[in-house]
Amino acid sequence: MDRELEICETTDSFACEDYKEEEPKMCELDQAKTYKGLIGIYVDESYITYIDGIRGELYYRGYPLQDLVNNSSFEEVAYLLIYGKLPSKLELKAFNDEMIKERNIPDNILTILKSFPRNTTRIELLRTSVSALSLYDPDDYDFSEEANIRKGIRIIAKIPTVLAFSHRIQGNLPLIEPSEDLSHACNYYYMMTGEVPNNDFTRYFDKILICHMDHSINSSTFSCRVTVSTLSDIYSGITSAIGTLRGPLHGGANERVMNAMLGEVKNKENVIPWAQSKLEKKEKIMGFGHRVYKTWDPRAKILREISKDLWSNLDVVEKIPDIQHEEHKGEIDNIYEMTEILTDFMIKTKNIYPNVDLYSAGALHALGIPTALFTPLFAASRSAGWVAHAIEQLSDNKLIRPRLRYIGELDKKYENIDNR
Amino acid sequence: MDRELEICETTDSFACEDYKEEEPKMCELDQAKTYKGLIGIYVDESYITYIDGIRGELYYRGYPLQDLVNNSSFEEVAYLLIYGKLPSKLELKAFNDEMIKERNIPDNILTILKSFPRNTTRIELLRTSVSALSLYDPDDYDFSEEANIRKGIRIIAKIPTVLAFSHRIQGNLPLIEPSEDLSHACNYYYMMTGEVPNNDFTRYFDKILICHMDHSINSSTFSCRVTVSTLSDIYSGITSAIGTLRGPLHGGANERVMNAMLGEVKNKENVIPWAQSKLEKKEKIMGFGHRVYKTWDPRAKILREISKDLWSNLDVVEKIPDIQHEEHKGEIDNIYEMTEILTDFMIKTKNIYPNVDLYSAGALHALGIPTALFTPLFAASRSAGWVAHAIEQLSDNKLIRPRLRYIGELDKKYENIDNR
Repeated sequence: MDRELEICETTDSFACEDYKEEEPKMCELDQAKTYKGLIGIYVDESYITYIDGIRGELYYRGYPLQDLVNNSSFEEVAYLLIYGKLPSKLELKAFNDEMIKERNIPDNILTILKSFPRNTTRIELLRTSVSALSLYDPDDYDFSEEANIRKGIRIIAKIPTVLAFSHRIQGNLPLIEPSEDLSHACNYYYMMTGEVPNNDFTRYFDKILICHMDHSINSSTFSCRVTVSTLSDIYSGITSAIGTLRGPLHGGANERVMNAMLGEVKNKENVIPWAQSKLEKKEKIMGFGHRVYKTWDPRAKILREISKDLWSNLDVVEKIPDIQHEEHKGEIDNIYEMTEILTDFMIKTKNIYPNVDLYSAGALHALGIPTALFTPLFAASRSAGWVAHAIEQLSDNKLIRPRLRYIGELDKKYENIDNR
Repeated sequence: MDRELEICETTDSFACEDYKEEEPKMCELDQAKTYKGLIGIYVDESYITYIDGIRGELYYRGYPLQDLVNNSSFEEVAYLLIYGKLPSKLELKAFNDEMIKERNIPDNILTILKSFPRNTTRIELLRTSVSALSLYDPDDYDFSEEANIRKGIRIIAKIPTVLAFSHRIQGNLPLIEPSEDLSHACNYYYMMTGEVPNNDFTRYFDKILICHMDHSINSSTFSCRVTVSTLSDIYSGITSAIGTLRGPLHGGANERVMNAMLGEVKNKENVIPWAQSKLEKKEKIMGFGHRVYKTWDPRAKILREISKDLWSNLDVVEKIPDIQHEEHKGEIDNIYEMTEILTDFMIKTKNIYPNVDLYSAGALHALGIPTALFTPLFAASRSAGWVAHAIEQLSDNKLIRPRLRYIGELDKKYENIDNR
């Protein structure tokens, strides 16, 4: 039989013509092969993001990342990712208005946030809150593309509010309601600190957010697409993505870079001895290497420039109110210089290039963002990409259901418990 | 370059020897190919479940499903799935004791459940509650395998409590605390209804749960494995799985079977005209076809026998208190007979076999389970498989990070917003 019955785990739901689908044509080598980690396996076609791993280029909807970083705001790039084109003035205004209108969260979600224990990670709070937000979405039972876009915009708009509220609840600080006048990036920082940042700050913060907004089918985006491929809802998709981002092999990486710099390296004289000792002990060095890029990660290049700007221009940095006072920039060396020394060392000795995390850590630290907020901030930014991918998956859906190769015993005899 | 840098989206965290990994060997055909839906692609090796789609056989840890259905309880099979072997008497007692001890949920989770709106699906409540439970787990910051097993057992033990509480809250009924004396299946039903079911009921209910406990790498299990492959926590994994199960192409299917039987077919004389009309209009007929099985789904065979037993032995069925009184068995024809007629028709005219959903719907309905509880019950059962797969993934982890083939334009020129 050279065909198999379409469908999933446990299905229904196919017109009779759809019951049968072509089995993929694979050469013998590949039928026998196990693609652990799915390295190099293309799971679908996409119009969203192109990564050129050889040349080290990244495009959102066909536009070079650098051009968007130079010219766009978070809102404009979110529009681009979701709708596939840059907005006109009117379209951008309408989108901004909708995002602002959706910044508030239901009182019940705030009550829940207040009820949670204080010693949890922000990502657990965010994962739970986004899951709970679906219960209050006015389109909860509408699964049309239009409703999905509305839900997606709500999720993107509300994530900074959830994060800022939980940040201030954990710090026993009074909450700051979202502003109706500030941009997405600016309002996010305002809700955290109570201060409206200057234009320099907002510009840099926006650029950092834009660098993190999409990266094709990284693991969190993939889990989002797997989830919605059962025709589940977009809140389920984003909830999966947040949980996936939590892992140290994904969103947790730039926190680890910063912890190493602050906790172990401490000053620039220590960088090379520290790295040599790591390599000798075959321990991990954070912020280097990537499954797709074989050269500089283009985001690392952009963030390196931002980090350089910020660390050589400390009158911008020093005007910024610290979000938390646990970390003092004065006590350690210039993070930018430390990362430069480390990059030079790693390329020369190991031919391994820095990835996005190495330089985002330094840039965020310069902006006064506490390390514990790095992964939540990544989630806030990446939410736009997740929404775009969920909508693309649903626009031409096929259930994502691979195989596992069983390598255990078979036909074992069930022994009565008395005989075991 | 024939190697690529290991790692993910944004990484760190590899000993230097691990930075480089072999690119998979693929024939040219396959490098150019897009594996939409990952049909036929083996993503890993596994010792958990074997599906023989040609012969229609299913094994958990090497034991034929039928033997486990005949001899085991939910608890024994959960132990088998997690630990890879059948327990001794002592081991099973210790496992049962741990499951019983973990049935309660924190007061805060109950408060949250009470605060949620009444018109939501149980699966959204469950997804949110499991995500929230991680905040209260005493091992929240312990990622060892032992801690993961403890967390997994807590999740499996608490899901029925969350479901029963939310069921009774939605129905404005007084809550029933979990019993410390009843089996997992029996206690689940008791918390729903306040009545301890008879042995016949418990036996059938256990058998149905066992049939749903694992099915290799279905979409929900896959999303769980993708999530934990970033080294995220097991609550994140199960939260992803619950959200994925929600979709009508996965866990929602047996609800659709029942709704069709109750709402459209109604009696056995209508079955064939209804099916013919569906086929003529190229509409969907639920409960048939499967991506892996090319013959009878073995779970369908077992559930068919259970459904037959129950519907021909209504003194068992009639003694069961209805969980909700919205559905009356007396008003419609024997569901078992209706599904038999439909199966016969579909095999003869289309050579399409029933899947697990067709007969689980009839069996659950005979046991008085309301249709809206089918997917949550599936989640309660499948949670054991999810936990086993999360632990297996972490025992020999590789980040699951495939590729997307970009097919859009490139190098688009950024136009100033005034010129768009």
